[in-house]
Amino acid sequence: MVSMTGDNEAQVADPAEEHGCVFCRIVAGASRAHVVFADEVAVAFLDKVPLFPGHVLVVPRSHVETLTDLPTDQLQGYFSRVQRVAAVVEATMDAGGTFVAMNNRVSQSVPHLHTHVVPRRRKDGLRGFFWPRNPYESDATAADVALRLASAWDEAGTKTALR
Amino acid sequence: MVSMTGDNEAQVADPAEEHGCVFCRIVAGASRAHVVFADEVAVAFLDKVPLFPGHVLVVPRSHVETLTDLPTDQLQGYFSRVQRVAAVVEATMDAGGTFVAMNNRVSQSVPHLHTHVVPRRRKDGLRGFFWPRNPYESDATAADVALRLASAWDEAGTKTALR
Repeated sequence: MVSMTGDNEAQVADPAEEHGCVFCRIVAGASRAHVVFADEVAVAFLDKVPLFPGHVLVVPRSHVETLTDLPTDQLQGYFSRVQRVAAVVEATMDAGGTFVAMNNRVSQSVPHLHTHVVPRRRKDGLRGFFWPRNPYESDATAADVALRLASAWDEAGTKTALR
Repeated sequence: MVSMTGDNEAQVADPAEEHGCVFCRIVAGASRAHVVFADEVAVAFLDKVPLFPGHVLVVPRSHVETLTDLPTDQLQGYFSRVQRVAAVVEATMDAGGTFVAMNNRVSQSVPHLHTHVVPRRRKDGLRGFFWPRNPYESDATAADVALRLASAWDEAGTKTALR
């Protein structure tokens, strides 16, 4: 395990200090956390108040606020680490699966992108976000929503090409 | 909007037919869905029973079951589309943020990787997955969990290098 203690806080000169980001402080080693791994791309550590033991947060080393802010050329590096954390959490915590999630702005406690990786078991009591559901009033209502989203998608495509 | 009707089901010759995957059928155009976009990498469509209107599912065109099954070289293409869907959903549905999540095996209704993109607003009533939390019994307990995960991470690293 990589050890990150807060012994040398005064010596850390990092831009993170300026905007007071809690996760940048962990990345910089200025705040203590139970770290699972830290490399040049990302750092993973235990959520202090887990849904279940082994609930890990994966943060990119660079400070970006939300998923859409992560540069395209960092997606492979970041999500390959999220993938491996998901595999490791599932196997190590003897889980049946994982829940992998990002809150962007709403319900996002720290404005530094972080992916939750949570071990899941059947009947673990977490119906959570996925219940209750609310069907569309009619198929026409759904079609209208899809059309608006599709138009916005096409509009976005005229500005930037996807790679 | 891309239209996908079920008119030509009998003519579709796709491997998806063999294992009866609902999402492969949508990708192949053999099942109807309210599609937001469809390209060579992924297809996005409305969740039939949304948490909120504008709840979109993004699926890779190729059949993979869970996040960890998606080949590394497909991560950038897939997640750049998830990013754009998140931006489009937030703007179009006039939301304050998004919830972006994958259920792997447990709570995964269809065993074909799909990322939920859900528009969120403050006080929308969705505390969901992120409550209640359960703190570790002690710091030593947390340290032990982190150590086990870190060992598994290192072990995984000896087998495959991350790119």
